[in-house]
This record gives sequence, C-alpha cells and structure tokens, in this order.
Amino acid sequence: MRNLKLVIRYDGTRYLGWQRQREADPRKPRTIQGKLEELLSRLTGERVALIGASRTDAGVHAEGQVANFHTTSPLSHKELLARCARYLPEDIAVVSVEETDPRFHARYLARGKRYAYRICTTPYPEVFRRRYTLRDPEPLDLAVMRSAAGLLIGEHDFRSFTSLKSKKKLTVRTLHALHIEVHAGGMELFFEGDGFLYNMIRIITGTLLEVGHGRFEPQEVGRILEAKDRSKAGPMAPALGLCLLEVLY
Amino acid sequence: MRNLKLVIRYDGTRYLGWQRQREADPRKPRTIQGKLEELLSRLTGERVALIGASRTDAGVHAEGQVANFHTTSPLSHKELLARCARYLPEDIAVVSVEETDPRFHARYLARGKRYAYRICTTPYPEVFRRRYTLRDPEPLDLAVMRSAAGLLIGEHDFRSFTSLKSKKKLTVRTLHALHIEVHAGGMELFFEGDGFLYNMIRIITGTLLEVGHGRFEPQEVGRILEAKDRSKAGPMAPALGLCLLEVLY
Repeated sequence: MRNLKLVIRYDGTRYLGWQRQREADPRKPRTIQGKLEELLSRLTGERVALIGASRTDAGVHAEGQVANFHTTSPLSHKELLARCARYLPEDIAVVSVEETDPRFHARYLARGKRYAYRICTTPYPEVFRRRYTLRDPEPLDLAVMRSAAGLLIGEHDFRSFTSLKSKKKLTVRTLHALHIEVHAGGMELFFEGDGFLYNMIRIITGTLLEVGHGRFEPQEVGRILEAKDRSKAGPMAPALGLCLLEVLY
Repeated sequence: MRNLKLVIRYDGTRYLGWQRQREADPRKPRTIQGKLEELLSRLTGERVALIGASRTDAGVHAEGQVANFHTTSPLSHKELLARCARYLPEDIAVVSVEETDPRFHARYLARGKRYAYRICTTPYPEVFRRRYTLRDPEPLDLAVMRSAAGLLIGEHDFRSFTSLKSKKKLTVRTLHALHIEVHAGGMELFFEGDGFLYNMIRIITGTLLEVGHGRFEPQEVGRILEAKDRSKAGPMAPALGLCLLEVLY
C-alpha cells in the first residue's frame, strides 16, 4: 500500500469549501475534496479517501494545501500529475506528488499552518486579484492594527475569535506570528500558528479592520481575548481574502 | 471645455476588446470603450467620446490603458473616481483622473507602448493567474528564444508579423526592447515599441514559442522578417496572455 502526499492549489471561489459533502449530483461534486476524490478514484480504480490538512471554508483559497491518500495503484508521480492537470478544472491544481511514510497523516501530523489575508485599499477595485482580495478603501491606521495584532501573538484561549457554531471544547491555540505587510495598493496579514479554530483568522481580521478604522482601541483586543465571548469581537471578514499558504510538518 | 486623461485597468476576458462596436443591446455594451462611455455619459450628462491609446483586442488585458475625453462637467477627480469605482463592473477600474492640456490626444500623442506576454510553463495550471497567462508546459529553450528576439529589435518592416486582415500600408515600426524574464513557474516577454501592428505582439510571441520548442531555428526569424509574408511566421498566440502595461508620452 502506497501513501501519497499531494500539494494542492485552488481558487475556492466556485466551491463549497474543502470538505466533501453529500452532493445533489455525486458526479458533480462542488467541494475540492469531492472533486479530487472523484478523479483519483477514477484514475486508480479504487475508492480514494483523501485526508486534507485544513478544512478550508467555502470561498477560501489555497496555495499549498496538503493531503494524503492510500492506494495500491502503480501510477507514477509523473502520470498522476499529468492526469490531474488534464482532468481537473482549471481552478484546482495538484502541484506535487510525493511518496511518503505509511504513517503520514496530513491532518494529525501538521504542526502548523500559514495563512494570508489580503486586503485592497485603493479607491478602485483590484481588477486582476479581485477574487482573492477584500476591498476596503476606507483609511486604515496601520500602527494601531500592528499594535493590536501584537496582543494576539502567543498561546491564548481564542474562544472570542471562533464562530458560535463551533463546539470545540479546546480553544487554546498558539499564534506564532501575525504580521502585516503593506504594499502598493493594499496589505497582507500573515498568520502562522499551531492550528486555527473555525473562522478564527477571518474573525481576527475583521476585528483588526475595526481597529484600523478607529472603531476599537487596539488595547480592546486584549479585553476581547479575556472575555472568551464571540460577541465582543469584530465581524467576520469575507472568505475571498483568505488563502492557506503552507502546511508545516 | 476640460480635457480629462484617465488611466484604465481591465481584465479583458469578458469583452470584445477596447473598441466600441454596434451593440445588440446598446445599454449593455460588451466593449471596454462602450462600457466606459456609457457610464461617463451618464455621469456628465453629455455624450462622451473616449479616445483610447491602444485598441486592445478581444480578451487582451490592460494595466495602464490611457484614454482622454472632453467635457464641460464640473465633476471633481475624486467624485469621478468614486463613481467609476461604484458603477463600473469589477473587471474594469479607472485608476487615475488628471486634468490635461486641451490638445492632449491619447492615441496620436503616444510615443510608445509597453506590453507583457505571460506564459506559464509548469506541468499544472496557474490557478490564480489562469485568465492572464498562456499555459505551455512543453520545454522551452530560453537561449534560442532570446537570440531570436534580439533579431527583431530595432526599426523593421514587420509585415510578416501582422494579420492578413490588416490593410495598413505602413508596416515599419521600431521595437525598442523585447526581453524575456524567467520566474518560478513561467516567463514574461516584455515589448516596448513606438507602435504595434494589428496582432503583432501575439504573432511575434507565437513565433518565439516555435523557436523555443525547436520547430524554427532562431536565425529563421531574420528570414521571416525579410520575407514580408505573414504565412512565414508562426501561429498567433492567444489573447489571454497579453497585457498592455503602459502608454508612453
């Protein structure tokens, strides 16, 4: 039995997210996992169960999602890559295939993840990146955003920054880094952590945007963290600005 | 009478090109010029005729198209920008507005233009740039492409590199620069010239790709130039890879 590790890139715009769902038409899956499993099952002649490192939400993108699956198929890496390039829709790409340890598990063994949230601050829309960037042309105070971001770095209970829907008991995570880079026409928020709660990055981003717009004091972010109450944090930023950059092992 | 100069950016995918056409439904223009004129006429209450520097083809993109129009409207630059951002579709953006000399003419006074043609060479598709990049995963020999490109620089009769449809008598142009930059996953061909004939960049690109794939010797490009015969050159590269970067005055 081989265990194959894939690096996958996708434009999440058209999809219901990573995770397979019961589909109205099973031959036309509308999730990334569903789409890939359907193709890999056809290519290998086996029922493929793909384990993804991150269950990205509807509309969220990935440059470096990692997934693995077990197969007895003798397909070479090159053949597999070529067939994925040929049969996958243009908004999903398998970037690499690698033989890995039989015990490798893309989700359980991930020791961290890196994400970017992209914001366009120009008065006109970002024509070429419009599907991958939140447009927010109101002035943003970068200094206060950075100071608020600093309060979130480290090990914290991030209960205030996860969706009410989430039933996870363990809401302590370590945010190793959260830095903001500015470039012509916009900014990017880079997140690195050992794991992220449901909607955590989008709620942190929404809260930092409130700070940047002067609607929250930066110190308020520390109090939100302590409150352990989702209703204290800012709104959730839309999915389109978020991209999974890399999974760390 | 004011003369306003606009810098315009667009994703040409959905459009029939820059130039206004007789439309099936005049309220739903499918050209960039048509779309902009329709909005500017509404905003100024005047019938706006927009003069574009370059008549980009169907599917060609622009980062820095330049256009001007005459108006008596007192609309400020800021208002004009804000209304364009609000009412234009997301794939067209007015990036700047500037008051200019009454005699300024975006097309006649352009002394040059810069274009890029983008090629993705990875075995998998370029997910996020797929609408702006030609996919050509077969190996390309960069050295021979560069040597062929060098033969085209300078003042030449480019008749072999323009579409047969073109009835232009004067086919001499000066190509000031044509260089190829390589980056992870692809390459970009940069063109700068005093003017370009109909389909000239796409036919040059298609020809250089033939050279890169070993189907033409690089010296052949000199003979194609001398032949003044379109049928000697390579095929025309598709529109999606081409982008007007800048108009020089």
